[in-house]
Amino acid sequence: MVDFIGIERVRTLVDRKGVAAFIEELAGEIAADYRRWDDFDKSPRHAVHSPVGVIELMPISDGRLYSFKYVNGHPKNTSEGLLTVTAFGVLADVDTGYPLLLSELTLTTGLRTAAMSALAARCMARRDSRVMALIGNGAQSEFQSIAFHHMIGIRELRLHDVDTAATAKLERNLAELDLPGLRVTRCGSAGEAALGADIVTTVTADKRNAIILTPEMIQPGMFLNAVGGDCPGKTELHGDILRRADARVVVEYEPQSRLEGEVQQMPGDFPVTEFADVVTGRAVGRASEREVTIFDSVGFALEDFSALRYLHRLHREVRSDATIDLLPTIENPKDLFALLSTRRVTPRAAPRVRVPA
Amino acid sequence: MVDFIGIERVRTLVDRKGVAAFIEELAGEIAADYRRWDDFDKSPRHAVHSPVGVIELMPISDGRLYSFKYVNGHPKNTSEGLLTVTAFGVLADVDTGYPLLLSELTLTTGLRTAAMSALAARCMARRDSRVMALIGNGAQSEFQSIAFHHMIGIRELRLHDVDTAATAKLERNLAELDLPGLRVTRCGSAGEAALGADIVTTVTADKRNAIILTPEMIQPGMFLNAVGGDCPGKTELHGDILRRADARVVVEYEPQSRLEGEVQQMPGDFPVTEFADVVTGRAVGRASEREVTIFDSVGFALEDFSALRYLHRLHREVRSDATIDLLPTIENPKDLFALLSTRRVTPRAAPRVRVPA
Repeated sequence: MVDFIGIERVRTLVDRKGVAAFIEELAGEIAADYRRWDDFDKSPRHAVHSPVGVIELMPISDGRLYSFKYVNGHPKNTSEGLLTVTAFGVLADVDTGYPLLLSELTLTTGLRTAAMSALAARCMARRDSRVMALIGNGAQSEFQSIAFHHMIGIRELRLHDVDTAATAKLERNLAELDLPGLRVTRCGSAGEAALGADIVTTVTADKRNAIILTPEMIQPGMFLNAVGGDCPGKTELHGDILRRADARVVVEYEPQSRLEGEVQQMPGDFPVTEFADVVTGRAVGRASEREVTIFDSVGFALEDFSALRYLHRLHREVRSDATIDLLPTIENPKDLFALLSTRRVTPRAAPRVRVPA
Repeated sequence: MVDFIGIERVRTLVDRKGVAAFIEELAGEIAADYRRWDDFDKSPRHAVHSPVGVIELMPISDGRLYSFKYVNGHPKNTSEGLLTVTAFGVLADVDTGYPLLLSELTLTTGLRTAAMSALAARCMARRDSRVMALIGNGAQSEFQSIAFHHMIGIRELRLHDVDTAATAKLERNLAELDLPGLRVTRCGSAGEAALGADIVTTVTADKRNAIILTPEMIQPGMFLNAVGGDCPGKTELHGDILRRADARVVVEYEPQSRLEGEVQQMPGDFPVTEFADVVTGRAVGRASEREVTIFDSVGFALEDFSALRYLHRLHREVRSDATIDLLPTIENPKDLFALLSTRRVTPRAAPRVRVPA
């Protein structure tokens, strides 16, 4: 039997911790895994593109555990009442190849992405950052808000989305959450949102080379958390922002980010730093108060590996018989056929004529 | 909700059809998909190797449906009472990216591999083939036996395995099955098994460049169904068999087979024919009664795609409420956060000190 964490179960596990604490603990797990970067067998994710979206597989292994995530990205889904992104994943034992856990990752991807963003901000934002522009107020925006309020100390959120209903929804949710000391401001444009912000987070879903941030919006000292540009042909930042002399660009995994990130706009030798180097101190995330630091985030398999392992631990701590019969248990492993209980093979009397080519 | 076919459910679906009929219908599905080869977005599978085994992901899409299989290969598992190969897979809707079906594929891989082998035999074996050597009598051997008896008309099976207990198990299962007109002979060596055989099927699990078949065992007119050589560094045939002037080698998907198949021993320009060309009649599977035809089988994602679609159809035909809550259903797709029922975010009073690098 394989452990199973469905939607109901993940709600229970997150609710038990509280969202903010869950995100912060998960950020700790992700940081710990990035610190042992060289332990991982890494590859860019496998993507199948269609005119309306993408389906991706994100495998990774540290030699003891293996994980993969299935994730789609379909911006037009929301117009049909469906989620842009759904996901699930599996944790497996490298020694036997047996899956250990199947888990939902739709909700978890929101949590882990926010955890990763705030983790990057800890290394790359100015320490006195209190104001964040949040551009893109869809499915991920509450998670980003909670993570930056809790882990970074953001006290003003400046919201913008081309879909004003999305902003209204985020405002309502934030009002209900009533995060201590948090002021929420609705802005009529991305530029207005960025005005006076210490951090600018972009979480848009449009699958185009959309330019969300233009050079004149950017002030020295800002930290740009570009979450939404995560596909070939999908970016959020004007190239001139990356080309600023005072810009520092950090990516998760260079071979994948060259294909999918904001840096896909740049020549192959455009300088980037991998996050693992920052979190281990081999490189700096910010060299001065006036640098423009850019986390060119696309989402990497390691973050889902950390999330699956963390969820599995929580799942086992809180007793549950949630398993699924995805794997057979049999007496003799060379007798797989024993699983077929009946012997009804319905053979024909005469050999079949072969199929013509 | 996602449809779910677990071990119990797949037993029901197979038992309802009968194993032989299931395999033959599945072979028909696979053949139909190979005939529209150019519709598929194909890639070699993604493999993570460890000293004791491999974990693979096998994605494919025809632009309407997407599927992937997770499969491991751990030959040492049987000594611990575990299966060498376990597998599961997912069928998804390309238009929305939503998973439609999660299914066990451990048992199904046995069925689909036998279906594919017999399908290849229909195109590549001599029409009067009645005697098959079956070398490797483990988890897949009953499925191969049934498929070749039913679909090809094999009436003598010559069994060999270095593990005599595996052969005894296969003999017992075949005796119980009582396939009409089938004679079963136990042989002391691979060479003895191959003696007088029209077809030689090798289904061994050893992860080495093991040589199961050597040139002197091969007679003109034979069809070699090499199932077990399916990994870099894992082969079953001596290279000189492939180099015979009268040999014709058919593979499933050339880019993957060059890495994993028997042809990994050969130079990159060694001539091979893709099965899709054979099944559509663009190439011949056998040009004369005296050719040695070799199906250098490694297992390709298309076969699992066919199997998942076939299983899904059967699952829907036979009423069942077997679903799992792997996906959220929510009112407003931009309000993913609504899934978290409680608002307990446990924020801290003061912003956190950032983690040192």
